[in-house]
Amino acid sequence: MTTQYVYYFGDGHAEGNAKMKDVLGGKGAGLAEMTNIGVPVPPGFTISTAVCTYFYDHDKTYPPELKQQVADNLANVEKSVDRKFGDRKKPLLVSVRSGARASMPGMMDTILNLGLNDETVQGLAESADERFAFDSYRRFIQMYSDVVLEIDREHFEHELTAAREHAGAQTDAQIPADALRELVATYKKLVQEKIGRDFPQDVHEQLWGAIGAVFNSWNNQRAITYRKLNGIPDEWGTAVNVQSMVFGNMGDDCATGVAFTRSPSVGERKFFGEFLPNAQGEDVVAGIRTPQPISDLEKSMPEAYNQLVDVYKKLEAHYRDMQDIEFTIQSRKLYLLQTRTGKRTGFAAVKIACDMVDEELITHKEAVERVEANQIVQLLAPVFDADEKAKALKGGRLLGRGLPAGPGAATGQIAFNAENAVRMAKDGAVILVRIETSPEDIAGMHSAAGILTSRGGLTSHAAVVARGMGRPCVVGAGSLKVDYNKGELRSEGHEPLEEGDWLSIDGTTGEILGGKLATKPSEIVQVLIDGTMKAEDSEVFRNFDRLLKWADEIRSLGIRTNADTPNDARVARLFGAQGIGLCRTEHMFFAEERILKVREMILARNEAGRRKALDELLPFQRGDFEGIFRELAGLPVTIRLLDPPLHEFLPHTEAQISAVARDMNWGFVELRNKVTQLHETNPMLGHRGCRLGITYPEIYEMQVRAIFQAAADVKKDGIGVHPEVMIPLVGTVKELQLTTEMVHRIAAEVAKERGEKIDYLVGTMIEIPRAALIADKLADGNAQFFSFGTNDLTQMTFGYSRDDAGTFLPEYVDKKILPKDPFESIDQEGVGQLVRLGTELGRSKNPKLKVGVCGEHGGDPDSIRFFRSCKLDYVSCSPYRVPVARLAAAQAELEQKAYEG
Amino acid sequence: MTTQYVYYFGDGHAEGNAKMKDVLGGKGAGLAEMTNIGVPVPPGFTISTAVCTYFYDHDKTYPPELKQQVADNLANVEKSVDRKFGDRKKPLLVSVRSGARASMPGMMDTILNLGLNDETVQGLAESADERFAFDSYRRFIQMYSDVVLEIDREHFEHELTAAREHAGAQTDAQIPADALRELVATYKKLVQEKIGRDFPQDVHEQLWGAIGAVFNSWNNQRAITYRKLNGIPDEWGTAVNVQSMVFGNMGDDCATGVAFTRSPSVGERKFFGEFLPNAQGEDVVAGIRTPQPISDLEKSMPEAYNQLVDVYKKLEAHYRDMQDIEFTIQSRKLYLLQTRTGKRTGFAAVKIACDMVDEELITHKEAVERVEANQIVQLLAPVFDADEKAKALKGGRLLGRGLPAGPGAATGQIAFNAENAVRMAKDGAVILVRIETSPEDIAGMHSAAGILTSRGGLTSHAAVVARGMGRPCVVGAGSLKVDYNKGELRSEGHEPLEEGDWLSIDGTTGEILGGKLATKPSEIVQVLIDGTMKAEDSEVFRNFDRLLKWADEIRSLGIRTNADTPNDARVARLFGAQGIGLCRTEHMFFAEERILKVREMILARNEAGRRKALDELLPFQRGDFEGIFRELAGLPVTIRLLDPPLHEFLPHTEAQISAVARDMNWGFVELRNKVTQLHETNPMLGHRGCRLGITYPEIYEMQVRAIFQAAADVKKDGIGVHPEVMIPLVGTVKELQLTTEMVHRIAAEVAKERGEKIDYLVGTMIEIPRAALIADKLADGNAQFFSFGTNDLTQMTFGYSRDDAGTFLPEYVDKKILPKDPFESIDQEGVGQLVRLGTELGRSKNPKLKVGVCGEHGGDPDSIRFFRSCKLDYVSCSPYRVPVARLAAAQAELEQKAYEG
Repeated sequence: MTTQYVYYFGDGHAEGNAKMKDVLGGKGAGLAEMTNIGVPVPPGFTISTAVCTYFYDHDKTYPPELKQQVADNLANVEKSVDRKFGDRKKPLLVSVRSGARASMPGMMDTILNLGLNDETVQGLAESADERFAFDSYRRFIQMYSDVVLEIDREHFEHELTAAREHAGAQTDAQIPADALRELVATYKKLVQEKIGRDFPQDVHEQLWGAIGAVFNSWNNQRAITYRKLNGIPDEWGTAVNVQSMVFGNMGDDCATGVAFTRSPSVGERKFFGEFLPNAQGEDVVAGIRTPQPISDLEKSMPEAYNQLVDVYKKLEAHYRDMQDIEFTIQSRKLYLLQTRTGKRTGFAAVKIACDMVDEELITHKEAVERVEANQIVQLLAPVFDADEKAKALKGGRLLGRGLPAGPGAATGQIAFNAENAVRMAKDGAVILVRIETSPEDIAGMHSAAGILTSRGGLTSHAAVVARGMGRPCVVGAGSLKVDYNKGELRSEGHEPLEEGDWLSIDGTTGEILGGKLATKPSEIVQVLIDGTMKAEDSEVFRNFDRLLKWADEIRSLGIRTNADTPNDARVARLFGAQGIGLCRTEHMFFAEERILKVREMILARNEAGRRKALDELLPFQRGDFEGIFRELAGLPVTIRLLDPPLHEFLPHTEAQISAVARDMNWGFVELRNKVTQLHETNPMLGHRGCRLGITYPEIYEMQVRAIFQAAADVKKDGIGVHPEVMIPLVGTVKELQLTTEMVHRIAAEVAKERGEKIDYLVGTMIEIPRAALIADKLADGNAQFFSFGTNDLTQMTFGYSRDDAGTFLPEYVDKKILPKDPFESIDQEGVGQLVRLGTELGRSKNPKLKVGVCGEHGGDPDSIRFFRSCKLDYVSCSPYRVPVARLAAAQAELEQKAYEG
Repeated sequence: MTTQYVYYFGDGHAEGNAKMKDVLGGKGAGLAEMTNIGVPVPPGFTISTAVCTYFYDHDKTYPPELKQQVADNLANVEKSVDRKFGDRKKPLLVSVRSGARASMPGMMDTILNLGLNDETVQGLAESADERFAFDSYRRFIQMYSDVVLEIDREHFEHELTAAREHAGAQTDAQIPADALRELVATYKKLVQEKIGRDFPQDVHEQLWGAIGAVFNSWNNQRAITYRKLNGIPDEWGTAVNVQSMVFGNMGDDCATGVAFTRSPSVGERKFFGEFLPNAQGEDVVAGIRTPQPISDLEKSMPEAYNQLVDVYKKLEAHYRDMQDIEFTIQSRKLYLLQTRTGKRTGFAAVKIACDMVDEELITHKEAVERVEANQIVQLLAPVFDADEKAKALKGGRLLGRGLPAGPGAATGQIAFNAENAVRMAKDGAVILVRIETSPEDIAGMHSAAGILTSRGGLTSHAAVVARGMGRPCVVGAGSLKVDYNKGELRSEGHEPLEEGDWLSIDGTTGEILGGKLATKPSEIVQVLIDGTMKAEDSEVFRNFDRLLKWADEIRSLGIRTNADTPNDARVARLFGAQGIGLCRTEHMFFAEERILKVREMILARNEAGRRKALDELLPFQRGDFEGIFRELAGLPVTIRLLDPPLHEFLPHTEAQISAVARDMNWGFVELRNKVTQLHETNPMLGHRGCRLGITYPEIYEMQVRAIFQAAADVKKDGIGVHPEVMIPLVGTVKELQLTTEMVHRIAAEVAKERGEKIDYLVGTMIEIPRAALIADKLADGNAQFFSFGTNDLTQMTFGYSRDDAGTFLPEYVDKKILPKDPFESIDQEGVGQLVRLGTELGRSKNPKLKVGVCGEHGGDPDSIRFFRSCKLDYVSCSPYRVPVARLAAAQAELEQKAYEG
């Protein structure tokens, strides 16, 4: 049996369907599905992703069966549209487009109008009109030369401009037929000069050239970068869609457009899109002409508009999700060229999910699955302070307005190109200002706090990419002039702004303001944390709250927070944290009044001296813990005893040493010697954590005393309190035994002294590889809980110092030596093995062992999914990541259930 | 059934035997065995080690059965000797001694003459003589007060001296009976004063007090330190031996002594020992009086001497090993009080093992088992240069002679006490000089390069401990006066030496010389490496050689060496290395002519500049490899590509930077900036190993080119060459893939260029925890061999920086948090898990995978045993450890075979 590499669609029936994204790519699957459900789609066929894989595995050649399968399908298309490929009279023209499993907008290549040559253009001219035919031919040569022949497109743009000027035309559409015919001749000469042979006239050569170019474009630099940023595996490959052309540029009863079935920026339930009359699809996406809103279509082409509304309703009902569609109207008849699940901002994602629940389109569970957990942070992002902004507007600082393409407020210094944006972003916030953006700008967009373009619509490259990244973005601000040569952003009536000048943009309203503008908390923060807004006044908050409550009903993984202050604790609790998973006690040591005492302790010549200083520190620590316990009101609080090496508390430069020596009445030389003596070659692997607690037991004793005294005092006020004392950097059973015994002893002493018995646990961090390897022994009668410190565990398991890895880690991610930065998302293959092993070993001795994670991975959705699969009890993350973690934990739960069947 | 806690021996029959060391301790097992084979032993009983365990597990109480069992056995002893415990007329006196499974000489407490009180002393006086009776009583009070009542023994010494002086006696033996009777009264008063009650008169109270004191002494500081130094587990516990007294101090036909059946220092087959006439055993061991050689006994007590010779022959034939015995002669009749396998130096161990093979007492296999692998290093230790020493002797530098107690030559600065020795040893070699040593001196002895005492015999504390530690030692140098008060070592006719002055001792001859004296290679090195001595002139060499050849016949584990130069390679090969397991290429970078090029490479502004400097380095590296390949002549050579971070090659202080900048024609500021830029917070976890090889591929390419060019050139001369290229610091599969591909590519290039195909392997170090965790993937089509870098693996698995761990690691070993320094002997529990796992995972994908170890653990016998159990193919160690490793590998093989049955 021959493998099927090519799948036909057309005339109400397709060989594929929506479920075959792996084989057909997203676009191909969408075309097939639409065909099947009766949406008008020009016929065509999809060459499967398996061919892409074959292509790269076999030195860029094709499976032998492919040629025949393409020929057969092409014949079917010819039959369906009653045209013939390469035919002089009724030529079939096709588009050739890429289509990967995941959407990669603009990243790979597309060729339209393929099948035109000196012969067929005549046929097209005869059957349609001459101007249209030669415009199509010149477009085709231009695109094909760029994509397949790799001739710089600027050469063609240059000739096009010359032709336009020569014809005295304002726009390309005004260039007359004759001029276009001449332009085609010029283009062909250009090709001959550049590549030393004629532009291919054989339509089959054209087709195979285009297919090869699409497969090749899977591995162009843009596509590779995009995949890396979006976590798309390289081995997926792309499909190729060959489809008979329909033309949005055949006259004023033609158009081409893109639309979302709901607003992708705020989620509003409203048909939402843009079109360009008498244009081809690429014109919309490229953002070269600013398109008209879809509402205008209702007026200009009511018939087509009604068809479109029908289709949009059909598609949303069918897919039960917001769709992003591409359409062309040829002579008033609507054709759909693409449908896919629409990308959306976090705001839109939450609103659409909640609305669809209300519309009874989806369940709570589906709503939870629909919102990418990381997107939730967008809803918490700052906005401009309303008063400040009002003042700025009054003060005449409004430079202009554009389309609100990515919500959120951003203020930063202007950068006029991606390279500068990347460089400047190292020192502060940057607004990337471009006429329009292109895939080459991705790195710059990623670095920028906000993006502004003077051209392009809400579906332009800038808008789509910015939304994906969650960057505030304003596009199509046509009243602003971006002058790359002078390095200026001009707005009438205002001084020109230069690179480095401050600029503020509001991605929710589209406003652009000169200068810096203070931002203020998001609505959710205002309702939940600051109390400056009422819940009933904020739909955003209400949807956020509903969604997270649905998530809470689903998830089994607990969410705690990393918090060192009562305020952090409060914020996290309001965000839904179910306790503190990591309270770092050393952060408290740095406060001004305390650091002196800490230094006295370190510099003490003996234990008695240390104890004296520690006695003075104790009330401070007790106060800190009391504040946190009161805030948590009965939720568990995991407190990690002192972790960093002592030298972190000492001054390091000569000047600092001199100042501290003066303050402390110490000799400079003496203090410098002490600093030198405490210096470590590899502090990460040095005298810290429980190693300090064992060599200077008095330090840990003070901390534990402070914890239990605070707990007793809070409990006396009738407030619940559940401290969980956590020993850091444990690598041997004996370390844990010694420190655990100490905790129990001090707890008993304080219980006696304060007359209050506290319900507490003692446990250990698992952050040293050896701890994971001997976790059974650590759990056996010693630790009552484990908390994986995946930051340090990653450092030691990889042998990477987080402080130093910057010299090679970015290159490692670039070169695919690592799939991701292991400090951002847990390395499941290596470090993850230790997490799983440690958990299993620990539970083998103590089935009730509580196991959590307190590294920064606790707020990363991929990591959370992994931790859930390891059956951890909770993750702990920073307060603002708590909502993300709640949602991700629910999604992980659903995935795990699905996996377990 | 009641547990048997007490085991009787006497009258030719014992309840125990030699195999019951675990239960009876070494001494108890020896007494039982001797009783059974008809050697004269005073009857007694042993309280088992289980009681010690019980004692510490139950708050220092005894099993309830014990009382009755002791009483029953005591009754048997009474019957056997026809005396009664506490009886006025025929009192039974007993000794109470500790006896652990492993010998711990002088570490725990012993009490003699127990059973004496104001009544029984009269009986003893009547049945023997008065002087003897009161001398025994005063000894008993003194010992019991020290050990059980914890009264400082100096008080008693003080009264004894006063009594001696008052009586005008020279020695204690000359103090008359009356004076001793008075002394007993004084002693009793002293006890009353110190403890507020009378010296116990109830003999049972005495007995139980003594038993308790012995169990308590298991955990005194001396004993704990000794166990730590000798790797004896704390949980073993001690037995207690209660034995009827025999007296070596009842007159001139009495004596007490210790003897070895062969020489413990050089192994000579000659009865070898010392005795004191009219003395008790403790007098010999304490070294207070210098004893007479055993040959004198033949003259003074021929009858007893002949009995002793018979017993020694019987014991050696029975135990088939050199024995260390304690005996007492009471009224011409010989009693054995102890036999055990004699401790011996490395020299003696090798000679005895070889001699016993020749005597057909033991097999080759047993000979191999008999020599502690670490002891072999003693045979390689330097001796004084004969000419130098002759000159020094001629120059009148000989200060005196003592007994040669620990072979080897040592030169160092004098320290008069242990504390100073420990301190001074940090800066250089120290000779610890004492009148006599005691268990309190152990730490000082450990720090010292050599030990000298002016008092004591070959079985004195100093001699026994020094031999165990392998320290050169001279004891009993009576012509030298050690004056602690003045801090002087005086020898007639010489200027007094003070602390810090240089001194040289020859532990093989007993000579003591003033000043520093150059040492020279051992006989083995002279024969094997230097060729300055012939094998036939060195029995030491011949035995060493035979033993290691027997070891080679047994072992399956390969032994390679860590060598970076042709000379190291040569030495190792002569010591029996079967290849190089680690050749560090960066050591070659530090040579003067090269470091400049290396720096040029590092400071180059781009790849071209780096390549230029590397091209100039290439001939140097090629030359190095060529030398090594020629030396190894066909044995495999594992070459590790560059490992350390680049900043290691740059200057660091301002002065160095300034000098280098001048040399290199670089700006000072520019160079300093580069140094700062390359600085790492945690260099151990930084940009090094294959991370460098990936970010600067040109460096590894140069090294690989040099390897293959050198290999081709050597092969052209008809010499076999087998390079094994080793990639360091691999943590991911892709790192290994990229570097491995590069090696194959360069190898092919050089094969073409030089016209020689080289037989080579490419493999990886496993030194990052993650590498062990993904070892299956590393082995699967990538690595052809693994080499565990257990130094780095230990650092990362524990999270210990070797450079910094000095701040807590000694305390960790002290506090038993770690059983041993994990950098000396591999941590089997944690790091070992990764070695085992990595090996198993690797072999699961490639059953032929060659696996070795190249950390310093490769020369540690305990680690070697572990590596053999993991089925590794080879270990690699420094050249001088190769003989140790060969022997240890054979022992590991025998153990493993025994374990596998």
